[in-house]
Amino acid sequence: MKVALVGYGTVGKSVYKMLEKAEGLTPGKVLVLPEFYTAPFQTTDYNDILNDAETEAVVECITDIKCGYEYAKAALEKGKHVVSSSKAMVAVYGPELNKLAREKGVAFLFGAACGGSMPILFALSQSRQMDEVQSVSGILNGTTNYMLDSMQRKGCTYEDALKVAQELGYAEADPTADVSGQDPLRKIMLACAVAYGVLPVDGLNREGIESLTAADVNHFAPKGKVCRLIAKGGKNDDGSVYAYVEPVLFPKNAPECSVLDNNNLAKSVCKYNGSLVMIGQGAGGDPTASNVLRDLINIKTGYCHFLPAKCEEGAAHNENDVHRYYVRADEKDLALFPAEEVEQTGDVYRLITAPIAVSKMHQLAADIRAEGRKVFFAAVAE
Amino acid sequence: MKVALVGYGTVGKSVYKMLEKAEGLTPGKVLVLPEFYTAPFQTTDYNDILNDAETEAVVECITDIKCGYEYAKAALEKGKHVVSSSKAMVAVYGPELNKLAREKGVAFLFGAACGGSMPILFALSQSRQMDEVQSVSGILNGTTNYMLDSMQRKGCTYEDALKVAQELGYAEADPTADVSGQDPLRKIMLACAVAYGVLPVDGLNREGIESLTAADVNHFAPKGKVCRLIAKGGKNDDGSVYAYVEPVLFPKNAPECSVLDNNNLAKSVCKYNGSLVMIGQGAGGDPTASNVLRDLINIKTGYCHFLPAKCEEGAAHNENDVHRYYVRADEKDLALFPAEEVEQTGDVYRLITAPIAVSKMHQLAADIRAEGRKVFFAAVAE
Repeated sequence: MKVALVGYGTVGKSVYKMLEKAEGLTPGKVLVLPEFYTAPFQTTDYNDILNDAETEAVVECITDIKCGYEYAKAALEKGKHVVSSSKAMVAVYGPELNKLAREKGVAFLFGAACGGSMPILFALSQSRQMDEVQSVSGILNGTTNYMLDSMQRKGCTYEDALKVAQELGYAEADPTADVSGQDPLRKIMLACAVAYGVLPVDGLNREGIESLTAADVNHFAPKGKVCRLIAKGGKNDDGSVYAYVEPVLFPKNAPECSVLDNNNLAKSVCKYNGSLVMIGQGAGGDPTASNVLRDLINIKTGYCHFLPAKCEEGAAHNENDVHRYYVRADEKDLALFPAEEVEQTGDVYRLITAPIAVSKMHQLAADIRAEGRKVFFAAVAE
Repeated sequence: MKVALVGYGTVGKSVYKMLEKAEGLTPGKVLVLPEFYTAPFQTTDYNDILNDAETEAVVECITDIKCGYEYAKAALEKGKHVVSSSKAMVAVYGPELNKLAREKGVAFLFGAACGGSMPILFALSQSRQMDEVQSVSGILNGTTNYMLDSMQRKGCTYEDALKVAQELGYAEADPTADVSGQDPLRKIMLACAVAYGVLPVDGLNREGIESLTAADVNHFAPKGKVCRLIAKGGKNDDGSVYAYVEPVLFPKNAPECSVLDNNNLAKSVCKYNGSLVMIGQGAGGDPTASNVLRDLINIKTGYCHFLPAKCEEGAAHNENDVHRYYVRADEKDLALFPAEEVEQTGDVYRLITAPIAVSKMHQLAADIRAEGRKVFFAAVAE
């Protein structure tokens, strides 16, 4: 199967290299912007790809959401399979492209858009067909995991951890999408779309790691707790889905605590399959390209869709998922929380709450911050 | 796709139940022995399955190796896909059945034969096609993991841990296949066959957990080391494969240490994909059936073979894989080992050795035991 590429950045270069060696796959043309054209295997005219009858599949790996969508759409309309590694694009246009691909009888896969090197979405799409996916969760952002691990194991401050992550190329100059939880939220939205046929775009809750301090880590680390930023989605008893991102404190022998540096973890819990955890590299050219290649091998053998035939945008309902929370707050805000344990250090209070609904906890934190005060919270894993 | 079953034990019952709900799959007849016939969906005559043109696939989930092989072979010869959950059968007849399936243009998959609920073999078969599998390893036996975890976390003796495992149904009345490492060795043989096209049947090394004592655990646990029984296979620089089973001591934040009770772990290391770890249930009706169902969904979409077209029996070459070892031995045997550290407690010596080849270490232990003396060893994970 001849495979063309749109984009020749870190991921594109790795995909091209792997296509040259993979069984039954060959690289086609690579679309680049005119200023990046360097060799005849590249083209600056997308029609060279669209009009090449031998090119059966197009890999889209560019960052611009709108352009990525246009390229993907045009390829599908020409009856070519599309594989995308762009979580941001698929989180917006996934359902539309899924519909178009199915109409045209071609594939639309995006394994690398969630979990980097790990075939999470493929596993979820299979589980949807033969099991019941109860929940999917994980450490889906390598940058924040690197920072949390540095704070825990090396005693770094938040600022130092961020600085090193930037120096190592894990974090962007503007790290907002990572540290605010936007990136892992997009990934869990995709996982929900695959597992349940619902892309949750409303009612989401997102808490990143920006409020975490070294003093917090120094408080819970001696108690055997390790903080990880967790994205989680699942199905409520009434059939609606929930989806959110928030810090979680795990006991030391949880698999999440073995996820060091910038690695990722994904955990699915299904009725029959039970719990299945994957740990792997969440980003990087070669690992991400590996997942693109897995998609292409799947397409070659006939596996064409992660999303079910009926996949639509919907709302998350996070009012039914409840956790105990670790909360650090000012005295003024103490009464907001049903505390089961309280510790005071100067004017800082740290609580373990009774179970609170996810949506309620995030709203309480927003209310406190709206009044100019600080709060940190993390769910306490059972 | 209509799917018949051979066998209606723990796995067969779960497969049947899942087939009734799975998308695009329906259960056919179930072959049982006359004394177990209870209902009309069962049959005692295999011809009812072989001669049913609508039955496209047969799931073989019985324990008898020779019978399982005969049933699988007959189904393939009739042009029906075969899925087997029997590691013992596939470890003997896999290459032959793979050849036959390819000649007949049908599928032969056996995902549940290695890793219980985890789609390890599928992932490896994909990696073989588009990456370079450097090694595959893991905790592939739930019984021994339960015992090791009980000894470590609950301070049980070996005998108590085995007794509880038997009471819980994790261990057989005769636990030899588990505690001697035979079961995980079969699984790693299958993983090598999938990853490299070589089913290693000679030159294997196998050390179980039978020599481990509570005193050993009491010695290394305070040093932050956790013992797991690891099966490992990989490719040597000269292209030959290695394959063996032995206890390994891990540092506490290794993913292996988060594998508690009777859970399993599998880790593949590939050139591009990097390290990919899966943790899940290694046995049990529903988890194992989940992997059978994954195989069936793969077949339905066209993914037919884990083993490459050329897959043959071969030999393992374990003389190039080297580790430091933790060794507990008598004074008389000390000189056999290149010791880097020695601790003495009464007449018991505990060493950390310089790197020793796997085949050499296993031979040394065999030599010591041949003279009637005791020894325990475990590789030290870096």
